[in-house]
Amino acid sequence: MLKPGATIGILGGGQLARMLACAGARLGLRSHVFSPLADDPAFEVCAARTVADYTDEAALAAFAAAVDVVTYEFENVPAATAAFLDAHAPVRPNPRALALTQDRLVEKEFVRGLGIETAPFVDVADAAGLERAVAALGLPAILKTRRFGYDGKGQMTLREPADLAAADALLGAPCILEGFVPFAKEVSVVAARGADGEFRAYDLCENVHENHILALTVAPARVSLSTADEAVAITRRIAEAADYVGVIAVEMFVVAEAEGERLIVNEIAPRVHNSGHWTLDGAATSQFEQHMRAAAGLPLGSTRRHGARVEMRNLIGDQADRWREILAEEGACLHLYGKKETRPGRKMGHVTRVIPS
Amino acid sequence: MLKPGATIGILGGGQLARMLACAGARLGLRSHVFSPLADDPAFEVCAARTVADYTDEAALAAFAAAVDVVTYEFENVPAATAAFLDAHAPVRPNPRALALTQDRLVEKEFVRGLGIETAPFVDVADAAGLERAVAALGLPAILKTRRFGYDGKGQMTLREPADLAAADALLGAPCILEGFVPFAKEVSVVAARGADGEFRAYDLCENVHENHILALTVAPARVSLSTADEAVAITRRIAEAADYVGVIAVEMFVVAEAEGERLIVNEIAPRVHNSGHWTLDGAATSQFEQHMRAAAGLPLGSTRRHGARVEMRNLIGDQADRWREILAEEGACLHLYGKKETRPGRKMGHVTRVIPS
Repeated sequence: MLKPGATIGILGGGQLARMLACAGARLGLRSHVFSPLADDPAFEVCAARTVADYTDEAALAAFAAAVDVVTYEFENVPAATAAFLDAHAPVRPNPRALALTQDRLVEKEFVRGLGIETAPFVDVADAAGLERAVAALGLPAILKTRRFGYDGKGQMTLREPADLAAADALLGAPCILEGFVPFAKEVSVVAARGADGEFRAYDLCENVHENHILALTVAPARVSLSTADEAVAITRRIAEAADYVGVIAVEMFVVAEAEGERLIVNEIAPRVHNSGHWTLDGAATSQFEQHMRAAAGLPLGSTRRHGARVEMRNLIGDQADRWREILAEEGACLHLYGKKETRPGRKMGHVTRVIPS
Repeated sequence: MLKPGATIGILGGGQLARMLACAGARLGLRSHVFSPLADDPAFEVCAARTVADYTDEAALAAFAAAVDVVTYEFENVPAATAAFLDAHAPVRPNPRALALTQDRLVEKEFVRGLGIETAPFVDVADAAGLERAVAALGLPAILKTRRFGYDGKGQMTLREPADLAAADALLGAPCILEGFVPFAKEVSVVAARGADGEFRAYDLCENVHENHILALTVAPARVSLSTADEAVAITRRIAEAADYVGVIAVEMFVVAEAEGERLIVNEIAPRVHNSGHWTLDGAATSQFEQHMRAAAGLPLGSTRRHGARVEMRNLIGDQADRWREILAEEGACLHLYGKKETRPGRKMGHVTRVIPS
């Protein structure tokens, strides 16, 4: 258990690191941010900073020596970086959790190995493999690179045989083909597991994506109580199997069937997650503080929701230009990430609304 | 109206500046902290820092040039510093508000001039003046230095004539003697006035002091609705008369009389205030964000309270050693200020509890 005044090292300097650093400061924890990009938003709110590449071992060694524990804001920390740091300081979540979630094939096999349903999938190494995969799964299906995908990057939907010709762009890297899931809703569980094994989940989040990017989250999700309970139980099984410490998010599809709702795990994020941003204003403990508590080995906080319902809308690209209007809206909580440049598809901020009753 | 990415300069680097800087970051505002003390807590969460004395004009000029607006976390900013900065950048709240609240005599005369009741008081320049003041006000009475007092520093209670002998320690500086107010409760209004004159108050705060230091705040205060309304109206009158921009706190005594409650203004703080810390977890917009909004010329946020009641307890000196226990308490929100050294009477943190119903 770290003490107040301890330093948490954070790999990555984006908005998630920024919100983690501020949440840590509430608890008297110092943040040391490590990122290759000097302009990153998290550098504006941290006690110490390292601007260096993730492969710079001298910088990594100095960073590890300066911090009490290492965590990260994104799952694409190079495995060698995580292994190097792990030899010098505790890394939470552990590098195995990173490895499990960096590769879609490994992740899906891990989830299935726990007896949890995923979309049907086939490993795809090349064009011939893709043809075999399509024969097995049918169309439509989604071709994804096994690594480094996010916000719709590194994936394409194949609707008809002619679409396979365009797949070459992705097939330079190992891929998987995923069968199309005709879902009624997308939901996510944002939860935390403490260093002592304590597990706490927030209310189930209901998510709406636009152009493959999260647009809206509503908590609690409008699903049956038993579906919500099962979603949390699935997440707990995953976190325990990975000996996970920190906030974890598990995205799932809800499929509506005659006999009720069925859950299919889509993706695991070994970190705080966009669909948990509503907790900043809408829960007793934000997901960011919860993650810092877990990483520091402290007890987890209450996940109690404020109000009857909480909504979070992302501000993507020039949607953030509406900041004046949002600031003037009664009860709207505006969050801007301090990014220097607005780009289409870039997450610039979000707005939460707590609906009292 | 400043835009996201603008820089707010903050004079002072204590816990109030620290919480202001984090609140500004939520809105995409950068904070530049100016303090003579390199170890100050706010330096751990700001985008830019100046470690220099408040009389260092070269440092002040560079600071003013680097920021879009200047604000402060404490009322004892030297008048010359405020005047110098005001010539280079907008200072909010304005230097006149500072001047009004730095001197207890000036402050009380200003409040009385608005037709608002204060405790009886007499200016005291020396021992002979003190004897005349005691003759006028009677005992018990409280002798206070006109300037630089806080948390019971710079004041002593005179209960009987023999106590006057010990008053020499204070009489080296100009003082006032205040008549003793037999109050039923202490309350404070934490409110904000925007650059456009908009005024918004939080629920009235009920405060309990121990050893002259705030120990507990409960919101809303347990007073009549008309008393709460009058307290807000008094604060609004003060803020408007001072052409105030930012968060202001007005401490008042509630005197219980046969015909009802009477309010007596005790002290004005031209800044965010300890009795408003409950808003961090217990209101839609924290007092810190509210102040940053006002300083930046942005619209004020909702002051709506979460839950039926919110409590804030200060962690003074070694009370902060209870952090483990507080972290494990369901629904308690712990705040620690990152101060390097624990000293008796030093504010090390606070804990808020939102009571749902």
